Amino acid sequence: MPPIITLTTDFGLQDEYVGVMKGILTALAPQARLIDLCHNIRAQDLRQTAFTLQAAAPYFPAGTIHLAVVDPGVGSKRELLILQTMDRHYFVAPDNGLLTPFLAEDRFHSAVFIDCPHLYRQPPSTTFHGRDILAPVAAALANGADPSRLGTQAFKENLTKLASPTLQIDQIHGNIDGSVIHIDHFGNLTTNIHQSDLAELATDPASLQIVHGNHQVTGLASAYASRPDGQVLAIIGSRGYLELAVTNGNAAQTLGAKMDDPVRVTLGMKG
Amino acid sequence: MPPIITLTTDFGLQDEYVGVMKGILTALAPQARLIDLCHNIRAQDLRQTAFTLQAAAPYFPAGTIHLAVVDPGVGSKRELLILQTMDRHYFVAPDNGLLTPFLAEDRFHSAVFIDCPHLYRQPPSTTFHGRDILAPVAAALANGADPSRLGTQAFKENLTKLASPTLQIDQIHGNIDGSVIHIDHFGNLTTNIHQSDLAELATDPASLQIVHGNHQVTGLASAYASRPDGQVLAIIGSRGYLELAVTNGNAAQTLGAKMDDPVRVTLGMKG
Amino acid sequence: MPPIITLTTDFGLQDEYVGVMKGILTALAPQARLIDLCHNIRAQDLRQTAFTLQAAAPYFPAGTIHLAVVDPGVGSKRELLILQTMDRHYFVAPDNGLLTPFLAEDRFHSAVFIDCPHLYRQPPSTTFHGRDILAPVAAALANGADPSRLGTQAFKENLTKLASPTLQIDQIHGNIDGSVIHIDHFGNLTTNIHQSDLAELATDPASLQIVHGNHQVTGLASAYASRPDGQVLAIIGSRGYLELAVTNGNAAQTLGAKMDDPVRVTLGMKG
Repeated sequence: MPPIITLTTDFGLQDEYVGVMKGILTALAPQARLIDLCHNIRAQDLRQTAFTLQAAAPYFPAGTIHLAVVDPGVGSKRELLILQTMDRHYFVAPDNGLLTPFLAEDRFHSAVFIDCPHLYRQPPSTTFHGRDILAPVAAALANGADPSRLGTQAFKENLTKLASPTLQIDQIHGNIDGSVIHIDHFGNLTTNIHQSDLAELATDPASLQIVHGNHQVTGLASAYASRPDGQVLAIIGSRGYLELAVTNGNAAQTLGAKMDDPVRVTLGMKG
Repeated sequence: MPPIITLTTDFGLQDEYVGVMKGILTALAPQARLIDLCHNIRAQDLRQTAFTLQAAAPYFPAGTIHLAVVDPGVGSKRELLILQTMDRHYFVAPDNGLLTPFLAEDRFHSAVFIDCPHLYRQPPSTTFHGRDILAPVAAALANGADPSRLGTQAFKENLTKLASPTLQIDQIHGNIDGSVIHIDHFGNLTTNIHQSDLAELATDPASLQIVHGNHQVTGLASAYASRPDGQVLAIIGSRGYLELAVTNGNAAQTLGAKMDDPVRVTLGMKG
Repeated sequence: MPPIITLTTDFGLQDEYVGVMKGILTALAPQARLIDLCHNIRAQDLRQTAFTLQAAAPYFPAGTIHLAVVDPGVGSKRELLILQTMDRHYFVAPDNGLLTPFLAEDRFHSAVFIDCPHLYRQPPSTTFHGRDILAPVAAALANGADPSRLGTQAFKENLTKLASPTLQIDQIHGNIDGSVIHIDHFGNLTTNIHQSDLAELATDPASLQIVHGNHQVTGLASAYASRPDGQVLAIIGSRGYLELAVTNGNAAQTLGAKMDDPVRVTLGMKG
C-alpha cells in the first residue's frame, strides 16, 4: 500500500496555499497518496482542528501520516512536532495543542521536536512553515524516514494541551452538565456528553430529558428522520456523542445555538 | 486501470465527514482512485443530487463506481442500493430518488437492495450509513465483488423516483413551457428544455423568443461572450439544455431568478 | 513518476464542472495524478488566475501539466494555448492573459495555438472548452504527446498579456508606491512590493514606514504572532512580497482594505 498523507489546515480553498503544499509533497514523495481531511477549519481555531483530527484520523489505516497546519504562532518560538500514536498514526504539526486528543495515555506512543534543517526549504520563511518545514518532513516520513532521526525526543508532559470543556456527571441527582463542542454543516449540535455517560445515568433512554436553553427534548431518537419535519430531537451522533438535531432542518438556527452553549441531561418523571 | 470511486454528498467541506469516508475507502480498497464530484449539494436536496450525477457520471469510464450519500432518511426504513447501468456504471446510494435519471429504460441494467452485514462497520450507526455501509460496499465493488452477491434483486418498478419538472411542447401554437432546473456558480439558469425540443419547434433558432418573467430574449447566442457585458442571452449550455446567461455577469441576479421559475419559448414574428 | 495535472478554474465547487473534467482526464490518461490548485477563482478574474498560477506552479516538479480554465471568451475567437516554460512546466489554457507571468523573458520557452480537432470531444460545444478541448489536450500531454504536434507555433509577442499594477520606486526621496494585489483567506493584504525592492530602499528594515490609507506601520515584523492580538503589522509574506496583516485578526477588515488600494513605503525618521 502506498503511503497516505492527509492534510488538515485553516487555509481555506481560495488561495494557492494548499496547492503549494501538495506540489512539495508530490515532488518529494511522488508515490504518496494525498487526501484532504479539511481546509475549512476556522482561522487559527486549534480546538476545531483537534476535534477534526480526533474524529477522522482513526478511520485511516495504520501508517497514515496526518499533516496538520493551523499555526497562528508560525515564526515565533513554538516547536514543531512529529507525534506517533500507539496504533501507528503519525502527526506532523505545530506544538500548539491541536494534537491534544493524541496525548491521552492510551494513544500517545512517542514524539519528537522537529530538528532536521537539511530537509527544510532554504531559507525557511517565518510565515509558512507548512510549506518550508512540515511538508518536507511529512514527505520524508512517507519515504520511510525514522521519526527519531528527524528531531529530538519530546516528552508528553512538555507538549501543549488544550483545556477540555467541562463535563459534570452528578449520579446522585441524576444530572449531566456538558456543552456544545461542535456545530456541523447541517446545523447539528454535538455535545461532549458521550453515549457511555448517558448509559451510566439511565438504563432507559426514554427517561432522559435533554435541555438546551429553554428547549427540552424527551428521550433519544433512533434516526434524524424519526420526527416530523422541523422538530428538535436528541440522538447519538456518528461520533458516539449526544447531538441535538432537527428533522430536515437546522438545529443551530432553530435553537439559536452557538459553540459552548450549556446542555444538561436529567432524568425525567419516567426515570 | 485502477478502479475509480467518485463521491457526491451534501456534507459540505467544513466537517470531517468526507475525510472519514475516504479513510474507509482507502483502508479497504487502497488501489482505488477517489474523485470528488461534489460535496456542496444543498442539504437533503435529492433533485440537485440527481441532476449532478446525471450531468457528470457519463464522462467517467465504464466500470466507475459512484458513491452518492444524500440521505435524509438515514436510520429509517429506506433501502440502500447498488444500481448498474447499461454502460456499466455502478451507483451506491440510498433508494430515495437520487438515482432517478438512471432508471430510464435505456440506462437501467439491474439493481440490488444492499444486504451484506458482514461488510458493514459493526455496529452500524443509525446516523451515518455512508460511513458504515455504503463506503464498505463501494470498496467491495472496487475489489471486484459481484453486486448480486451484496444484496437481493431490486426491480426497477419498486425503486423510488423523483417527479420530473413539467415540460409542455405545443407544436400547434409553437410554444414550449419549461422551467429553471439548475442555477450554477456563475448564475447561469439551466432549463429543462433540450436543444432537440427547440429543433422541433423551429428550424431557424433566430426566430425563437425566450421569456423569463417580463424579460424576453430573441434568438440563441453562439457564445457567452457574444453580447455586450451585462446583457441577457439565451444559449445551448454544455449539458445540451437551453440556458439563460449574462455576458460577464450573473443571470440569476440580473433576472431575480430562482429554481422552478417558468421559462417559455415561442416563435417570434420572424418564425 | 506518473504525470501530474493540476487544475485551476473559476468553476466553484457547487456544480459538476470540475468533476466532468476529472472524468475526461481519468478516462483518457488514467495514470495521471490530478491535483486541485484552486477552483474558487472569482468568476472571470484573469488577474487572480495569473497570480495563483505564478504562486503555486513553481512548487511542482518539472514536467507538471497545469490546466487552467478561466475562460470568459469561450466560444468566441480567442485562441487556446499550450505554453512551455524554461523549467519544463506545461500550461494548457485560453490565450486571454492568465499566463502573463510565464511570458517573462527568463521563463517563456515556447507555445503553440492548439489545433488538433481529432482530439476534441465531437462536436465541441461553444460553452465548455475546458471539457471538450483543453482536458483532452492536457491528457494527450500526460500521455507523452509533443506540444508541437498539437498546434501551430505561437510567438510570444502575439500572446495576450495583462497589464501589471503600477510600482514606482523613487530612490531619491526614498519612497515606493505600490498597491494591494491579493487579499487572502486570512485577510492578509499582499502588495506588489517585493522584499528586494525594500532592500534597495533601506538597509535597516526598522526604518521603514508602511502606509495604507490613514494607517501607518513602522518596521517589519518577523512573524504574524510577533505583535499583540489585533495589531496591524507589516511582514514579508511567504511569496516574498510585503504584506499587511493583523495578529490573530483580519487586516482586510481592520483596515477596510480592498484590491488595488495604494500602499506606500517611506523611510521614517530613523532612516
